[in-house]
Amino acid sequence: MKLTEMSAEELASFKAEVQKKYDDFKAQGLSLNMARGKPSAEQLDLTEGLLTAVKSSEDCFAEDGTDCRNYGGLDGLPEAKALFAPMLGVTPDELIICGNSSLNIMYDTIAKFMLFGTGDGEKPWKDTKVKWLCPVPGYDRHFLITEKMGFELVNIPMDKNGPDMDMVEKLVAEDDTIKGIWCVPMYANPTGTTYSDEVVKRLAAMTTKAKDFKIFWDNAYCIHHLSDTPDTLLNILDECEKAGNPDRVYMLASTSKVTFPGAGVAMIASSEKNIKYLKSMMTVQTIGYDKINQLRHVKFFGTYENLMEHMKKHRAIIEPKFKIVLDTLEKEIAPLGIGSWEKPNGGYFISFNALNGCAKRICQLCKEAGVVLTGAGATYPYGKDPDDSNIRIAPTFPPENELKVAADVFATAVKLASAEKLLAE
Amino acid sequence: MKLTEMSAEELASFKAEVQKKYDDFKAQGLSLNMARGKPSAEQLDLTEGLLTAVKSSEDCFAEDGTDCRNYGGLDGLPEAKALFAPMLGVTPDELIICGNSSLNIMYDTIAKFMLFGTGDGEKPWKDTKVKWLCPVPGYDRHFLITEKMGFELVNIPMDKNGPDMDMVEKLVAEDDTIKGIWCVPMYANPTGTTYSDEVVKRLAAMTTKAKDFKIFWDNAYCIHHLSDTPDTLLNILDECEKAGNPDRVYMLASTSKVTFPGAGVAMIASSEKNIKYLKSMMTVQTIGYDKINQLRHVKFFGTYENLMEHMKKHRAIIEPKFKIVLDTLEKEIAPLGIGSWEKPNGGYFISFNALNGCAKRICQLCKEAGVVLTGAGATYPYGKDPDDSNIRIAPTFPPENELKVAADVFATAVKLASAEKLLAE
Repeated sequence: MKLTEMSAEELASFKAEVQKKYDDFKAQGLSLNMARGKPSAEQLDLTEGLLTAVKSSEDCFAEDGTDCRNYGGLDGLPEAKALFAPMLGVTPDELIICGNSSLNIMYDTIAKFMLFGTGDGEKPWKDTKVKWLCPVPGYDRHFLITEKMGFELVNIPMDKNGPDMDMVEKLVAEDDTIKGIWCVPMYANPTGTTYSDEVVKRLAAMTTKAKDFKIFWDNAYCIHHLSDTPDTLLNILDECEKAGNPDRVYMLASTSKVTFPGAGVAMIASSEKNIKYLKSMMTVQTIGYDKINQLRHVKFFGTYENLMEHMKKHRAIIEPKFKIVLDTLEKEIAPLGIGSWEKPNGGYFISFNALNGCAKRICQLCKEAGVVLTGAGATYPYGKDPDDSNIRIAPTFPPENELKVAADVFATAVKLASAEKLLAE
Repeated sequence: MKLTEMSAEELASFKAEVQKKYDDFKAQGLSLNMARGKPSAEQLDLTEGLLTAVKSSEDCFAEDGTDCRNYGGLDGLPEAKALFAPMLGVTPDELIICGNSSLNIMYDTIAKFMLFGTGDGEKPWKDTKVKWLCPVPGYDRHFLITEKMGFELVNIPMDKNGPDMDMVEKLVAEDDTIKGIWCVPMYANPTGTTYSDEVVKRLAAMTTKAKDFKIFWDNAYCIHHLSDTPDTLLNILDECEKAGNPDRVYMLASTSKVTFPGAGVAMIASSEKNIKYLKSMMTVQTIGYDKINQLRHVKFFGTYENLMEHMKKHRAIIEPKFKIVLDTLEKEIAPLGIGSWEKPNGGYFISFNALNGCAKRICQLCKEAGVVLTGAGATYPYGKDPDDSNIRIAPTFPPENELKVAADVFATAVKLASAEKLLAE
């Protein structure tokens, strides 16, 4: 029976029962975490061989004879570019292999656009008002970068095809202070959405009033499939080129959830013109990134096919974890009609929409029962979810036995918060 | 006989002889390099053990249980801080262990001050005119960062005690747009100078009209001694604290010339207040730096004492190289009175001052004979040496046999350029 269809009496009795179950959980003194998209220790073990992929001085030489132990190599080893270029569907000349964090590249690139402009002949962004489009729900760390830069963040609702393109097209056509948009185009954080071909084409082709409008295409989960029939994503760099906007997009990726978060390699891809411009600024900033770690990745994987096989091992570990959470939601929440979610085909998250006004309370209840979730509101700019509805669930890190309990606590908290809300109405 | 004391006839005959020797070198089709301060392959071999210092999943755990393979740890591993804190003479709370490049930290920190200010309540530097003091000759990559930011660079002459403090004190007292100074305080690049205690104290204590004046204290060569009686440097963070200017200085260092350039660890130190401020901005930029590589360094060295022993092995390799260049200069140039230099007690360079107006010509002659030097002028802001006199010699990279030839070519080029100049007068 749906909770919204219950009489006040039925609801009160439902709540009393749930409260009891919740109090039992609370009494257990749990300490569980479904907050961040972190690989589990078991996943990290898959990459143990990376640690010794370069183990002697002789191992340190690149194919072109470069001694990777010494200075040089601003834009990355050629063989590292060759290995990772297919991941983003670009040529090596459209790619820079950087350090350990794609988030850092994004921050850094936007900071460069602030200080020096985008290289399109327009003013540096520090000298102009900037608004930024933020598909919601989305990734809190993206929003934080553009918030810190002082941009005005504009919410764009996500649907099952990606951001609301009618809204995006209208806004960018009429407002030249809108300089960019955050996109996680495949298995989006947190909704799991992969942008439809139409959305990609419209993003590439739309008319923007700002001449220096940029798409930050954070393809963090491009090879993180959880299905035998994975989603497919159109190559936006190609589409931008075709549409006559070749310099519109910067693509990002990393091996943070492929090898080791914080000790992997990250990369940025764009048109050759943009890459040349980025390099002209990077050369002031650094002599080069960690080439030995790039070489470790090259030697560990060898080929792109091996990299794909490696990702299947990740899937084997995390797919059952997604199933635990999804089964719990299906069994405990679906019949009550007090939440909605999608089964993602890949990525790291399940996006849960509670009854409006319940997300904060659910997170609070979970926290008090020892289950940490990403704070309610985090999936929106400024941490403000106008509906107080969305919660991002990250099932990958905890072991399965802990995850089972955490999912049960979560379902119990959803029930309790929903009953509280309906009783108060 | 000094070249300046020769008659026109003697000079012409001297030049003819040198020209012949130069032409002989040129005919050999040499390809030698004394341009950049790079460790040699033999030095890099000293650190081979670093590659396998972390070789299994079990090795990846920090003392506090942190799994270094996963996200987290914004400011560096506690044991990495403990290992490197003595190098800069700071406490772990005054230190952040970052990625692979101290140059990147410097660029990044100044970019943050541009965008967000220094945290002293003054305007972000993007919103004000900024002048920057550059002790000369100095490090080209320092100058380039501040040039790129649009600062006006002000030359400050170096003497054997460090920068000309009378000039520095006068300038900073009267001009509130002077926001900072570059310093390589120990075995300076390129002069080899170590700042005297008096200079350090005056930098720490001087009255600056700008409330947000900052010293970038790039202590790149703090443990790179080439003598049994190494120079000593006063701790400027302590001196700033004593003088009532606790937040004035940012200290930088890295293991680029200790372990692997580009695959080492870099660090920044300052007052606890400044470190807290930096972290508040860094947390927007990244989740954390490469902790596995930090752990490699911790396991490879173990103790600060071992790190000091390691540096003695570097010295054993590079000291003979400095001797080759210094002996050649002493033998070939000193009697002629056409150049001056100092024997450095540490660091990576020999700073050579030619007769005014000869540096470019010397570099050109060397280049045409197959010996690459750092371009003349590089040791000055905007690449402009007003006297066209200073040349930075980097003796560490070439093998000894090559270095011997390169030093001979250099001495020959100095003689030829000097004779050309004197004949033209």
